[in-house]
Amino acid sequence: MKLKGRDIISLKDFSREEIDHVLKMAQAMEPLAESRSNMLHGRILATLFFEPSTRTRLSFESAMHRLGGTSIGFAEAGIASVKKGENLADTIRVVENYADVIVVRHPLEGAARLAAEFANVPIINGGSGAEEHPTQALLDLYTVVKERGTIDGLNIALVGDLRYGRTVHSLAYALSLYDVNLILVSPSMLRMRREVLDAIEEKIRVAEKATLDEIIDDVDVLYVTRIQKERFPEPAEYAKVRGSYQVDLKLLERAKQSMIILHPLPRVDEIAVEVDDTHHARYFQQVWNGIVTRMAILSMVLGKNG
Amino acid sequence: MKLKGRDIISLKDFSREEIDHVLKMAQAMEPLAESRSNMLHGRILATLFFEPSTRTRLSFESAMHRLGGTSIGFAEAGIASVKKGENLADTIRVVENYADVIVVRHPLEGAARLAAEFANVPIINGGSGAEEHPTQALLDLYTVVKERGTIDGLNIALVGDLRYGRTVHSLAYALSLYDVNLILVSPSMLRMRREVLDAIEEKIRVAEKATLDEIIDDVDVLYVTRIQKERFPEPAEYAKVRGSYQVDLKLLERAKQSMIILHPLPRVDEIAVEVDDTHHARYFQQVWNGIVTRMAILSMVLGKNG
Amino acid sequence: MKLKGRDIISLKDFSREEIDHVLKMAQAMEPLAESRSNMLHGRILATLFFEPSTRTRLSFESAMHRLGGTSIGFAEAGIASVKKGENLADTIRVVENYADVIVVRHPLEGAARLAAEFANVPIINGGSGAEEHPTQALLDLYTVVKERGTIDGLNIALVGDLRYGRTVHSLAYALSLYDVNLILVSPSMLRMRREVLDAIEEKIRVAEKATLDEIIDDVDVLYVTRIQKERFPEPAEYAKVRGSYQVDLKLLERAKQSMIILHPLPRVDEIAVEVDDTHHARYFQQVWNGIVTRMAILSMVLGKNG
Repeated sequence: MKLKGRDIISLKDFSREEIDHVLKMAQAMEPLAESRSNMLHGRILATLFFEPSTRTRLSFESAMHRLGGTSIGFAEAGIASVKKGENLADTIRVVENYADVIVVRHPLEGAARLAAEFANVPIINGGSGAEEHPTQALLDLYTVVKERGTIDGLNIALVGDLRYGRTVHSLAYALSLYDVNLILVSPSMLRMRREVLDAIEEKIRVAEKATLDEIIDDVDVLYVTRIQKERFPEPAEYAKVRGSYQVDLKLLERAKQSMIILHPLPRVDEIAVEVDDTHHARYFQQVWNGIVTRMAILSMVLGKNG
Repeated sequence: MKLKGRDIISLKDFSREEIDHVLKMAQAMEPLAESRSNMLHGRILATLFFEPSTRTRLSFESAMHRLGGTSIGFAEAGIASVKKGENLADTIRVVENYADVIVVRHPLEGAARLAAEFANVPIINGGSGAEEHPTQALLDLYTVVKERGTIDGLNIALVGDLRYGRTVHSLAYALSLYDVNLILVSPSMLRMRREVLDAIEEKIRVAEKATLDEIIDDVDVLYVTRIQKERFPEPAEYAKVRGSYQVDLKLLERAKQSMIILHPLPRVDEIAVEVDDTHHARYFQQVWNGIVTRMAILSMVLGKNG
Repeated sequence: MKLKGRDIISLKDFSREEIDHVLKMAQAMEPLAESRSNMLHGRILATLFFEPSTRTRLSFESAMHRLGGTSIGFAEAGIASVKKGENLADTIRVVENYADVIVVRHPLEGAARLAAEFANVPIINGGSGAEEHPTQALLDLYTVVKERGTIDGLNIALVGDLRYGRTVHSLAYALSLYDVNLILVSPSMLRMRREVLDAIEEKIRVAEKATLDEIIDDVDVLYVTRIQKERFPEPAEYAKVRGSYQVDLKLLERAKQSMIILHPLPRVDEIAVEVDDTHHARYFQQVWNGIVTRMAILSMVLGKNG
């Protein structure tokens, strides 16, 4: 299987076989991530972040550097040529000359796909609007496989802002290719988008719930995301529901011994700090897994691997 | 011919022989730009952008990385030491310790030359005020030679904002060393600066025109630049003249088959998108040519080449 | 002596033997700083600047690149994950996955030490609040040894803002380990912090003075820092004392021939430009010394040296 030259825009574009292959390649990257490699020596990554995202940017750069490559780019919305009125298509047709692969982060949905239409080098979607964040979902899946040995057969709960959280959209599409029970836990205002539900409900079992309390006993993977207060028209509304989506030691008393907690980070208070030291917590290990997953992706689209 | 240690501040400082030599070295860089090189392994480029310019910065960084070097720098006007009241001379005397070559972009005319007076490492002008942008002009000339085989004997039109466009100033100085017919096409408010006209009119044939319509039949190279609405005291004034400087398919019906269109980018609407697919369009190829030209310049001033 | 894995947070944590060892390693780096090295090939430095500081950041990056390593990071206060409410401990636990060593610059005192408590990779304090700036002090000491052959026996004056200047705090702690006469020269409002005085007065001779005029004849090392006008409630207050802390040719007439002037830079007007060409001035050489000192520190904490 070859991903050389492939754009990574949406996990909707990927088969289960392709995802499994990426996860296998990620595992193969573990020793290189430690020891470093010259596999991509001379290759250049461009990180075009029209919207800031320090951790996604640094994760890609760290992955590229571990493989011997270099990186260039920008990290602010207000870049010069865009201020001067340039459209995204032109920016991409310029930057594809500077680099061998481009990661695009953009506040607008569809931006990464538009970029891919104009570029002759591979485009990786580093997050587009509230739509998708495919490499985050791949590293989430890699974490599940690494920690639990399999994805099939698990009860997986996605918790928090399922409406605007791009990570959970990508993850839901990917999980629908596996044999899982998906539980969606959110305030009613922040329920999973209709379009995502429609796409996944015909493939896997999906249940929507309103509180963590109802589901904690049976879950194998608890995927927690941040709920932004600003989504609620009244702060009082937020205050009312908030507690139902917070993970603390008390809640964990009822969890399975083997249950793992993931979070795309940054977190605010949806996971209590006291949880960090439990054997359930895996959200900081996810960060490392992101590096090896992105090493796999970069090496594959550049035709040096897999 | 040696450019080792040379500052690249203004094309007024260059002879035709020197420019021809740079263009020849740029051509020699084409295969290295593709395959990458270790020619500048261990060398450090500093990009000091007191004014943002994503594409010039990324172009220099891509050139440096393709030659095996690395880059450091800043991309925002409000850098810390400048905010604290430091003058440019001190900033340069500090940064020359960090790097082997420095690219300076500055909103004030004369800034790059001042930097060169204080630095012991080569300074490259990455654009100073509305004055000059010498490496852009060199890549423009390289594009003409690459596409047309020669500069001598051509009818070359510079179109748009000839008053504030730093690119066209550098280009006009350089073209005055060749045997060309130069046609200047601009609204009267944005005519070529007197000082540039005085310097070039004694060397080459220069004609000033008010519209593209008058000159399109005879032109070999059409060099289009952006006209900023803000230059006009009344928006209505701009609206009146705007159409006279826009390139579209209709205008191109009357152009020579071999005519090429260049643009320093970013463009807004002065070249219609429909023109991109014609055989006249060369503005995206210019971006690639900028990388090889800057590879030539960096390797030459660092004494590794030519 | 091994500094592998060591955090560099405060010079209060260092013995004289350790500091002398760092200075010796810095000297050993001089030829490598010129010729470049592959000692840290494949290693990654993260520069987390929650507060901008172009020169400290570029100095560390230049040091890392000269040793064959690479760097990633951010240079603005308003980074994405912090805006989203993330605490420093979480940021550090994320970034330690991306890099082999982390430099933290933070507006709050104690930030670097907090980071070190959470990180598994070495943390280097790149300046924390008004508290300390240990690598600046180490490069200052290296400059003294390089220029004068020794630190012991010298009359060393610290001049300017001794209250908020983090550099002078770190330097005072370090100098208290040597046999020096320390003279503190500042407006009364900006006197050295009580906590620093308490720590050093039991170890070395310390005298506080109000003007440069009183001390210039006997000084061997004049360490000048910037006085920020904003520290004074009334601009008139500042105007009154300002002249007492400015170094010019007239003042230098009374200085020892061998006296050297240091400054952490940037300077505003506390050292007149006319002083730059005298044989007393060493503040631009300090910048170079900062690179070799940081090369020594990076290679030592990464276990490749010393």
